[in-house]
Amino acid sequence: MIHGGYIYDREIITDFSVNLNPLPMPQEIQKALLQSISRIHCYPDPLQQKARECLALLHNIRQDQVLGGNGASELIFGIVSMLQPKKALLLRPGFYGYEHALKAVNCQIRDFYLKEEEGFLPDEKILPYLTEDLDLLFLTNPNNPTGKLINDSLLRKILIRCRDKKISVLLDECFYEMSSSEEKIADRYRELLFHYPNLYVLKAFTKLFRIPGARTGYVLSDAKNLLRLRNHLPEWNMSVIAQDATVACSTYLMETDYIKRTKALIDKERTFLENRLEAMGIKVFDSDCSFLLMRSEQNLYRQLLEHKILIRDCSNFKGLKEGYYRMAVKGREENERVVAELSSIYF
Amino acid sequence: MIHGGYIYDREIITDFSVNLNPLPMPQEIQKALLQSISRIHCYPDPLQQKARECLALLHNIRQDQVLGGNGASELIFGIVSMLQPKKALLLRPGFYGYEHALKAVNCQIRDFYLKEEEGFLPDEKILPYLTEDLDLLFLTNPNNPTGKLINDSLLRKILIRCRDKKISVLLDECFYEMSSSEEKIADRYRELLFHYPNLYVLKAFTKLFRIPGARTGYVLSDAKNLLRLRNHLPEWNMSVIAQDATVACSTYLMETDYIKRTKALIDKERTFLENRLEAMGIKVFDSDCSFLLMRSEQNLYRQLLEHKILIRDCSNFKGLKEGYYRMAVKGREENERVVAELSSIYF
Repeated sequence: MIHGGYIYDREIITDFSVNLNPLPMPQEIQKALLQSISRIHCYPDPLQQKARECLALLHNIRQDQVLGGNGASELIFGIVSMLQPKKALLLRPGFYGYEHALKAVNCQIRDFYLKEEEGFLPDEKILPYLTEDLDLLFLTNPNNPTGKLINDSLLRKILIRCRDKKISVLLDECFYEMSSSEEKIADRYRELLFHYPNLYVLKAFTKLFRIPGARTGYVLSDAKNLLRLRNHLPEWNMSVIAQDATVACSTYLMETDYIKRTKALIDKERTFLENRLEAMGIKVFDSDCSFLLMRSEQNLYRQLLEHKILIRDCSNFKGLKEGYYRMAVKGREENERVVAELSSIYF
Repeated sequence: MIHGGYIYDREIITDFSVNLNPLPMPQEIQKALLQSISRIHCYPDPLQQKARECLALLHNIRQDQVLGGNGASELIFGIVSMLQPKKALLLRPGFYGYEHALKAVNCQIRDFYLKEEEGFLPDEKILPYLTEDLDLLFLTNPNNPTGKLINDSLLRKILIRCRDKKISVLLDECFYEMSSSEEKIADRYRELLFHYPNLYVLKAFTKLFRIPGARTGYVLSDAKNLLRLRNHLPEWNMSVIAQDATVACSTYLMETDYIKRTKALIDKERTFLENRLEAMGIKVFDSDCSFLLMRSEQNLYRQLLEHKILIRDCSNFKGLKEGYYRMAVKGREENERVVAELSSIYF
């Protein structure tokens, strides 16, 4: 499997292969989803007006600077289909979804390999690789599979260079709210969009609210880009459920301290897991987010699977190989369980 | 608005602009949708295995001959993005969605105008227009906005000619189960797929089960086509809700006489509406389905809207002009209401 979360061909008790918020889904969201079923006989609003209004308020931007999608993956496809890039740069290791979309338009992919000794993190050495012949750069922040945030001043340098070289940037920040970054999502994007008309920021409520089944992604970009993007997406691309969920999730974020509680829990549990894993001798890469990249001589994937625990075997990430695994940070009870199973492998 | 069903900018009491089944949604489907919310924390199965298994059983085809989408409109986009047609033929008047998808790939559109005096129905005169320079033909059966079925022997002639001339055919039969055709859906497609590897049949549960908000379309085609199509669609294109709904709807169709009851009710109510409308002097075009194309000197759209009834103003269909309207066939109570409102306009 090229993605985590594939639970359809075996019995899984605990799925550590997807990096969902360890907090339970808020009751308000559950309620909104159930209520949404009563509107299933309506066509979704193709203009997504309510959903975009809420997203605009949440991020302190204009409504025409945001557009919803059937998950972030649909928006990746739509943007790529619109831009028709001839050449794109991907950071390796990285999320497979970008490659999937680029292949659909026969785009030539150039790889930039991140180094293990640098924690698989980009630094200024990437800048000279951002050359005029490139049409599109994909960045994931925090990075996948390490969960490490990109240094903000480096991000600016990359964005400036890409703007100068007329390279579009797809910045995937679907995990941003679950990272330890202290920047507020109400401040982050307004100014980024103002300065970088070549920027597309990908967001989703999928992970933050534990609703991957609903497909609720969105993209923030210059209004002109999004007006054009609309023509590269199906008319009713966001279901009634996805739109209602988007309204409920944005409202919930504006009215509660959910992000703060999420970050606090993830920080605590990530530290717990890191300490325990390292004590066993497992190499754990530095992370700011809700998942950890590990390296081990043992086949952790296969051995945990015997105990019906699924983690992400990262051997099929370009730039990694056998022996790398990604594991979600979950609640204490589940984390203790995986630690216990790992202990039994190691000792 | 280029489509019906837009109820988001005004108060509508009865929406005759979308052509949903007048039967209420079966309780089994409602129950399946509500249950599906409890699986919203799972990623959808990207292989759609259960959903495709049920669809294959329903249509008596192989599982690799069917693929689900985020509504039929996503599949239109995916197929067009895969085929990258240079030139496509559209029948006018017809559904706008095809044009929307073709424009996204800069396809040249050739129009074939159906004639009012022939009830806006294609006949053999279309055959010489199916020439080698075409890459793609769109057909809607029953036709939209007339609701008239295409004669089956003509359909065969078109498919054979397209196969010979290497023209792909996208046959949209999303309304087929709601038409008065007597052919069974368990018999119809197996043999069509066998003979025409260039054929894509579009289907959806949207109208039959009154669930446009869930986005449940699917396409039937040659396995090789669909394997390729998968690469032109986002990975988790069908939400958990859409997949669960697909399983529930196909199962329900196999276990009940829902289609028979649907057809009987629509036939009865369509006849009722036709008689009443014609008695008022409104020109009604012959229909086999759950909607009627009408012509009137009065601005029926605007006048009904004053009574919070929405019908489809067809003046923006290429090949029609002001004075054409499409109206759904609904249950008796609602049909009587629209007849009463129309009477007050006419008398």
